[in-house]
Amino acid sequence: MKVITLTTDFGVSDWFVGTMKGVILKISPNTQIVDITHSVPSHDIRAGAFALMCSYKYFPEGSVHVAVVDPEVGSKRLAIAIKTRHYWFVGPDNGVLSYALQEQDVLDIRAIENQKVRLEGVGSTFHGRDIFAPAAAHIAKGINPEFIGRKLRSFVSLPFPEVSRRDNRITGEVIYIDRFGNVITNIKFSGMDEFYGWSVVVGRKKLASVLGCYADVRDGEAVAVCGSSGFIEVAVRNGSAAEKLNLKTGTKIQLIKGE
Amino acid sequence: MKVITLTTDFGVSDWFVGTMKGVILKISPNTQIVDITHSVPSHDIRAGAFALMCSYKYFPEGSVHVAVVDPEVGSKRLAIAIKTRHYWFVGPDNGVLSYALQEQDVLDIRAIENQKVRLEGVGSTFHGRDIFAPAAAHIAKGINPEFIGRKLRSFVSLPFPEVSRRDNRITGEVIYIDRFGNVITNIKFSGMDEFYGWSVVVGRKKLASVLGCYADVRDGEAVAVCGSSGFIEVAVRNGSAAEKLNLKTGTKIQLIKGE
Amino acid sequence: MKVITLTTDFGVSDWFVGTMKGVILKISPNTQIVDITHSVPSHDIRAGAFALMCSYKYFPEGSVHVAVVDPEVGSKRLAIAIKTRHYWFVGPDNGVLSYALQEQDVLDIRAIENQKVRLEGVGSTFHGRDIFAPAAAHIAKGINPEFIGRKLRSFVSLPFPEVSRRDNRITGEVIYIDRFGNVITNIKFSGMDEFYGWSVVVGRKKLASVLGCYADVRDGEAVAVCGSSGFIEVAVRNGSAAEKLNLKTGTKIQLIKGE
Repeated sequence: MKVITLTTDFGVSDWFVGTMKGVILKISPNTQIVDITHSVPSHDIRAGAFALMCSYKYFPEGSVHVAVVDPEVGSKRLAIAIKTRHYWFVGPDNGVLSYALQEQDVLDIRAIENQKVRLEGVGSTFHGRDIFAPAAAHIAKGINPEFIGRKLRSFVSLPFPEVSRRDNRITGEVIYIDRFGNVITNIKFSGMDEFYGWSVVVGRKKLASVLGCYADVRDGEAVAVCGSSGFIEVAVRNGSAAEKLNLKTGTKIQLIKGE
Repeated sequence: MKVITLTTDFGVSDWFVGTMKGVILKISPNTQIVDITHSVPSHDIRAGAFALMCSYKYFPEGSVHVAVVDPEVGSKRLAIAIKTRHYWFVGPDNGVLSYALQEQDVLDIRAIENQKVRLEGVGSTFHGRDIFAPAAAHIAKGINPEFIGRKLRSFVSLPFPEVSRRDNRITGEVIYIDRFGNVITNIKFSGMDEFYGWSVVVGRKKLASVLGCYADVRDGEAVAVCGSSGFIEVAVRNGSAAEKLNLKTGTKIQLIKGE
Repeated sequence: MKVITLTTDFGVSDWFVGTMKGVILKISPNTQIVDITHSVPSHDIRAGAFALMCSYKYFPEGSVHVAVVDPEVGSKRLAIAIKTRHYWFVGPDNGVLSYALQEQDVLDIRAIENQKVRLEGVGSTFHGRDIFAPAAAHIAKGINPEFIGRKLRSFVSLPFPEVSRRDNRITGEVIYIDRFGNVITNIKFSGMDEFYGWSVVVGRKKLASVLGCYADVRDGEAVAVCGSSGFIEVAVRNGSAAEKLNLKTGTKIQLIKGE
């Protein structure tokens, strides 16, 4: 069974995600549909791109990843399907796929334009159901990419926030705050020990040291760890680091050796 | 694999929906279970009926749609299963199925009464698990309708709010507000151009014009569009129309030609 | 198809649960994954244990139940997999599995230590993805328990709050409040009539009588019923009993005959 994943800002209060699944199963009944999240903050393309980047590679080879955060739905922005060495990615051409794609070999880019891979009577407001779900289902069934639409040369890329490294001082920023209030930075680590003992500093204030795990500090204390998404994270044990340390998406963070 | 859909007001904080799925899979292991939504406002039968009406027809032929918004659970209201030309519908006989059914050819109506399609020791508080889930699973497995329970002649229908049309003025009302704050009216359109350029008016105030898509106005501006559910919707680009325009379920809305 | 259930405090705002599902499907593609809940209050091991206890037995024989509420992730607490007569249970060894296990014949207890049942490069923060999901997937595929890790003699048990019975007076407490505001006590009933007509008392105040169902009282009135999880529950018809009666987890509740 092929897997189709869904990452959207549609929420789960309404019937939107359910109808996308109906459309998929009507076209491709033997499909496992997995929700990555539907709680991307409304219209926040970067947050959606980040959620997809942190999750797509855990899925089986051949999975079709659909991401729909689409403030320009109904306008002229393209709908695209992109084949990489291991996966397909489907969504609006606004950058929501681009963080994941920057790590992948792109083999084919298609505009989703063929009437046969869209629902009849496509409206202007719900392309998740009318375009992206049916296209993903046809791809999961193994459609020849020629039948999706014309070949494109490029897709819209969002720049991933840059990190500057100078000797023993690395400057990055907060890129995501998770539901526990853990603060995810854009600073990657290569091994679990790379930054052990380094200090996390905001402005001139040291917030925490990089240690092994949350349980290495006491309740209510801050700690930085090598996070599960491959980035340095700041946490407060049994609390919200974002709240306690007043950190927001975009806040500049420094990692300094031995301070 | 047969599809069973679930529409409830059970929320996803507790284990209620999960146990319904366990019951289904125990009886009918080869079933795809799809959540339409579990966030119907508590005990709001009309909102549940509307969610089901907007979604059921996107599912494969033969799907079993279960809707449980059931303030009278444990009382004498009946549990029913209804076969239409394309689907089965299962739920309490309180109208929650009726918006969807008004569009369908009803072929068979059954009271879910046979002990064999219910769990043993049915309680008075959770018929989603004890009656509706097992009945749906037996139906998905292809049970003879005779074995569900006695045939009924009718089911409870909720009146769908009416629209009055007079020349170039249509009066309807708000029937649903989605998670983006988009305001869905009960005014149907037949083609994408039918109401192009018409005005949306509340009281004496014009709120918006019917245009092509959300992106046809600037951020923060209101627009009306042919919505994805087949009804005229009022939206505010990158904002909440419900909040900005102070619209609630039941608010009267007029659509007026060329004002 | 084998069933794997998930009970966590990860929420569904982030990509955490989605990546667990990806890991499972990569190892064991023919698996039905069912969410019991991901809204266990953050780090509340008892609430997670209770949710699992109320749901596990509704699933097909052979299901693998994964529960991850894990404030000590990354510390020395063990990861365990436990085989009972009918199911497998997988999670951290902190008691989150123990309420369900107290009702089951335990046949085998294993530490999840073998590298082959974990992801490569296990981190210190997300064992749901790196340890519990892959172990559950290997178990669903039928791995020989020897290959999970060394046999253990015991696991951590949380004491289930006790009930004292004296003649016609039973004293228990509130153990869970569901999303409707229904208040679940730890007082079990054996038959639907066992406590019919008894009074629910907090302090010296009678709050409600045990009756048949929610609909046996008028809107806004309190009623106690034999709840769907096997415990006496206090509800307010079409309202929140927790709010209206000011009941919290831990509040002492008395059940008194004929007062």
